[in-house]
Amino acid sequence: MKLHILGCYAATPRTLTHPTAQVLELKNHLFLIDCGEGTQVQLRKYKVKFSRISHIFISHLHGDHFFGLPGLISTFRLLGRDKELHIYGPKGIKEAITLMLKLGNSWTNYPLIFHELTRDSSERIFEDEQVYVETLPLDHRIYTNGFLFYEKTGQRKLNVEAVEKHGIDKAYFRKIKSGEDILLDSGQLIPNSELTYDPPRPWNYAYCSDTAYTPALIPSLKGVRVLYHEATFLEKEAHLAETTKHSTAKQAARIARDAGVEALVLGHYSTRYQEISRFAEEARPIFPEVLLADDGKQFEF
Amino acid sequence: MKLHILGCYAATPRTLTHPTAQVLELKNHLFLIDCGEGTQVQLRKYKVKFSRISHIFISHLHGDHFFGLPGLISTFRLLGRDKELHIYGPKGIKEAITLMLKLGNSWTNYPLIFHELTRDSSERIFEDEQVYVETLPLDHRIYTNGFLFYEKTGQRKLNVEAVEKHGIDKAYFRKIKSGEDILLDSGQLIPNSELTYDPPRPWNYAYCSDTAYTPALIPSLKGVRVLYHEATFLEKEAHLAETTKHSTAKQAARIARDAGVEALVLGHYSTRYQEISRFAEEARPIFPEVLLADDGKQFEF
Repeated sequence: MKLHILGCYAATPRTLTHPTAQVLELKNHLFLIDCGEGTQVQLRKYKVKFSRISHIFISHLHGDHFFGLPGLISTFRLLGRDKELHIYGPKGIKEAITLMLKLGNSWTNYPLIFHELTRDSSERIFEDEQVYVETLPLDHRIYTNGFLFYEKTGQRKLNVEAVEKHGIDKAYFRKIKSGEDILLDSGQLIPNSELTYDPPRPWNYAYCSDTAYTPALIPSLKGVRVLYHEATFLEKEAHLAETTKHSTAKQAARIARDAGVEALVLGHYSTRYQEISRFAEEARPIFPEVLLADDGKQFEF
Repeated sequence: MKLHILGCYAATPRTLTHPTAQVLELKNHLFLIDCGEGTQVQLRKYKVKFSRISHIFISHLHGDHFFGLPGLISTFRLLGRDKELHIYGPKGIKEAITLMLKLGNSWTNYPLIFHELTRDSSERIFEDEQVYVETLPLDHRIYTNGFLFYEKTGQRKLNVEAVEKHGIDKAYFRKIKSGEDILLDSGQLIPNSELTYDPPRPWNYAYCSDTAYTPALIPSLKGVRVLYHEATFLEKEAHLAETTKHSTAKQAARIARDAGVEALVLGHYSTRYQEISRFAEEARPIFPEVLLADDGKQFEF
């Protein structure tokens, strides 16, 4: 699992700080999460093979999370895309994007499919053989969803030595890897646990931005391995976090600690702060495994 | 008169080439002309005092000319703007921008005033004591306007020597500068031409992008001093200029020559070309006073 941070600063784009957008590489997917203004340029700058993106997840309709979307959709058209593009986001996104494109008589010549979200409880919005994605409703000033990305548990790994010892034919390997026991010609039953190892533990990733400090999220985050949680403010501005329904670094750390995740990625920093290292300093005493997102940074898990 | 080029490349924004946006400094105005994605970042990068922008002119509703507008409008709000912002652009722009902002519950707290354009003939859309602005309908794939920006002729300059010679009191200077003749107490009439010099010749600027080669524009461009004319293609791709309703460098030069302007600024280059100097090479034999726009370049006239 790889996470490319394209932008992780709050509010207005500036020369050196970009609004929210990130690409999650999970199995054979490139999932784009949020799409602030300039995202398509960031995709080019960091050499993400963005023609491979087929699913875009928009958390909410504040400009710093979706104003880059009309441009990216248009660019896909100019690049001659023909495969489907799926957009998941709050109700209203279809009308707005459609209008922006229609005004320019620039409707896409590839299938553009909107999946509008309205529910206040978690729902599964994408699934294939290898991964699935669920929403995680957050508490912000407007309707906002976080997203949970899960790898499905893979096939069991063959214990080659054990299989050879029992003289089991290749023809059975598929069954064994899918977890079945094997009945030998001799009548002996070999339990699957003797023939296989556990598959690698599946990765998963929770994206929580933008949101007030919401301990109610914790049950949904149990079992999450990597959590991105917004930290717009430091403790000194906790009052602003409260009024604007954002979080502080400490609050994000508390969520990570109480959910028992393996790693916490912080982002969505207010541009009032010169040094983002201060976010890690405030979070670490509460939850040590803190990673700081930054524009252009790539995390490999 | 100063012209700041923020972006002058066609179609998709890239790391080093930005879509169309420019700021014309005329008298005490900063006029923003077109607003492709990322314009607000370019304004910051090139240190344009963009809070001074009160009038934005959008030629047409292709994304590379207006997808930066919702973000810029939002940023003005975040910066605490309170003065009016006027947007001039094709019908539909109000609905689209309004929808983008309303979805985020981010309506402006300063007056945002749309002036929607629908006419197929030139009209005066802005005027104050010092300048006026007129549309110049162009020939593109969708409804498109160029814009003509004019300084008004200033007051006549006092000929201090002549005024002193006739012993004329200061109280009359305002009248003299506004062009009136003066009747001396002696009964002698002094014609204004003896008391004043001509004021400096007013600047003006014509912006023509995007457009097919349209000789019908020439009468409207007579008297224009600086012409920005799009040159998306070189001669080799003249067939593409025709099908996409764009112009070549040579065609832009022909318009400049036939209109008798003083200087031609080329821009809106297709990103297929590595060297923009080739646009000047093709234009110069037809019209020598060619300037090449480039992102971040500033022209002073």
